[in-house]
Amino acid sequence: MYNFDFYNPTRIFFGKDRLDMIDKSVPANAKVLITFGGGSAKKSGLIDKVKANLGTRTVVEFGGIEPNPRYETLMKAAEVVRSENIDFILAVGGGSVIDGTKFICLASHYKGDARDLLKFGFAQITSSVVEKVVSFGAVLTLPATGSEMNCGAVISYEHGKFPVMSELAYPKFSILDPTYTFTLPKIQVANGVVDAFVHTVEQYLTYPVDARVQDRMAEGILQTLIEIGKTTVNEPENYDARANHVWGATMALNGIIAVGVPQDWATHMIGHELTALFGIDHGQTLAIVYPALLEVCRDQKRAKLLQYAERVWTITNGSDDEKIDRAIQNTRDFFESLGIKTHLSEYGVTADQIPEVVEQLKAHGLTALSETGAITLDVSRKILETAF
Amino acid sequence: MYNFDFYNPTRIFFGKDRLDMIDKSVPANAKVLITFGGGSAKKSGLIDKVKANLGTRTVVEFGGIEPNPRYETLMKAAEVVRSENIDFILAVGGGSVIDGTKFICLASHYKGDARDLLKFGFAQITSSVVEKVVSFGAVLTLPATGSEMNCGAVISYEHGKFPVMSELAYPKFSILDPTYTFTLPKIQVANGVVDAFVHTVEQYLTYPVDARVQDRMAEGILQTLIEIGKTTVNEPENYDARANHVWGATMALNGIIAVGVPQDWATHMIGHELTALFGIDHGQTLAIVYPALLEVCRDQKRAKLLQYAERVWTITNGSDDEKIDRAIQNTRDFFESLGIKTHLSEYGVTADQIPEVVEQLKAHGLTALSETGAITLDVSRKILETAF
Repeated sequence: MYNFDFYNPTRIFFGKDRLDMIDKSVPANAKVLITFGGGSAKKSGLIDKVKANLGTRTVVEFGGIEPNPRYETLMKAAEVVRSENIDFILAVGGGSVIDGTKFICLASHYKGDARDLLKFGFAQITSSVVEKVVSFGAVLTLPATGSEMNCGAVISYEHGKFPVMSELAYPKFSILDPTYTFTLPKIQVANGVVDAFVHTVEQYLTYPVDARVQDRMAEGILQTLIEIGKTTVNEPENYDARANHVWGATMALNGIIAVGVPQDWATHMIGHELTALFGIDHGQTLAIVYPALLEVCRDQKRAKLLQYAERVWTITNGSDDEKIDRAIQNTRDFFESLGIKTHLSEYGVTADQIPEVVEQLKAHGLTALSETGAITLDVSRKILETAF
Repeated sequence: MYNFDFYNPTRIFFGKDRLDMIDKSVPANAKVLITFGGGSAKKSGLIDKVKANLGTRTVVEFGGIEPNPRYETLMKAAEVVRSENIDFILAVGGGSVIDGTKFICLASHYKGDARDLLKFGFAQITSSVVEKVVSFGAVLTLPATGSEMNCGAVISYEHGKFPVMSELAYPKFSILDPTYTFTLPKIQVANGVVDAFVHTVEQYLTYPVDARVQDRMAEGILQTLIEIGKTTVNEPENYDARANHVWGATMALNGIIAVGVPQDWATHMIGHELTALFGIDHGQTLAIVYPALLEVCRDQKRAKLLQYAERVWTITNGSDDEKIDRAIQNTRDFFESLGIKTHLSEYGVTADQIPEVVEQLKAHGLTALSETGAITLDVSRKILETAF
């Protein structure tokens, strides 16, 4: 097990009917900005319920944060924060709204050009960079990204997606009521399962470092997602399945399974380029890239692939290579069983566009990905070809 | 899955050579009290290393916090905090030192009779009760109680052990360096494994509520402790085994496996009386009580016992009752394999002393224990007789 640091101060209120915790958690006299996305939270009446729970506090709304939230949109919100003297933000939405809100919190009072904040990558943005940060809480409506309990965000600017990490951007609290996700379109639920699944394997399927608790916890999240995946997609009002989906997605990226282990975020990095170039949903890009990445990197990941085959998929017969083949095929089949296609060609991308993706990886400096840095641009190309 | 709240702001620094984080984490001009136990941390040179990492800060020492830390001892430390104007405490030790330090932090500036703080049981002591609380960090030397990453303590006063819970008492940080535990006596290591194991089952082996991630995480901790138990006891300098022991023990009681599930702390409650009356080590009391409790409560816990048998012990053959029998026997054998005897009679207690234990449970109001409240005094007596 490697040395590690762990810190996660986000307070979670999980379950049915938890909106009363807003009044108890938001400072009494705060002027509050509610951020949200395309309007479904408004149409469903959730925003009204949130406002009712803010009592007499003054509330300003900022809607229209898009999937893969864009820098320009967020800077408009930051302007509202400044002009309206906002003290606290309530993000009502999924990962994009929460990610976007983290950036608004960091950027609103940043003294330089806020595009600076896109340049830190996975390095922490500290209080020496951003002196004053707005606090926020979240009401989650989409189980997928884990943003409700971590300090990371991904912000889109021009043709890139930029990670932004800051302990200053942990939600003060997040309300996770599975019933608020009942009205999601099936495809978003399926994307959410894939996102949580791939987050988990990206912190697990690397090489062994004898981190037994972490491995077993990751395997437990994967097994849970496999067990409830089809149900949570096909029976949107099945509370138990959805509750396990929600909590699994949160646990997949709150840092707890990441401690002391190597990580491989190549699938997300390559996937981000597919979203930026072709507008493919984030979850879909992961379902495209991941099985292909496992195929191409099967030697690099051999020991952990065998563990994954045995413990997650209960594959105990056959040669090692046969076990790995079946584990990869099961992974692909699982994504497909949720209604997510796993081949790039099925999304209208043509083979001659693959070099364009590789160019973007190069332009963003993503030339040595994975737990070992062995996914060079050539390997990324091979992964994309395998995924085609 | 039940509704739940989760919050845990303790920062963890895990691994080799992490003492440099003290200087980065303790306020720059703080006057620091170092609390410790019987002197082994002093003899080993750890206290000196800790002091070296405090640089020019003024340091006061308070040693002699005993196992099952006593109210009177802790109040002497509280007097030091007040008379020396201590700003920050560094606890260097195991669960007793850290538990004791939490109480010192809460009691030092409490305005009433500090024995009031023993009356809250599992209810939170809030800032409306204790206005000013001293902050503290910990350097862990014994993997067992999980106190290094939770907000609970158990304090001994007269013939009772009293739980004390307060979010105000979370360690600001804890340094978990497995090498600091290499010099522990074998029995303390074994007790630590049992303590972590029983913490885990107390949050797991109740009745099913379809909390899949939590169940699998608990099972993962149990499997880890089973895998590394004998090694961490018999090969004290086996870093990997000890690292898994340390992290397993922390994860077993930092709240993460407790969320949304029923809990059964009967074994700890009955065990506390055995420690208070007969001076039996805490870990040993758990190894005595738990297998007997499973036997007596096998109907109440039937569904989860079968899950435990299958997933933790890979018992798949035989009738349900045979599976449960084997799971209970395996649990007992596991404790014995660590060198911990599991029968009350092996600790010099006689059968006619059992009513005395039951009387103490009654005196402390522990008359309806377990996840259902079904462990009445009669059932506790039966457990103790079965454990004899």
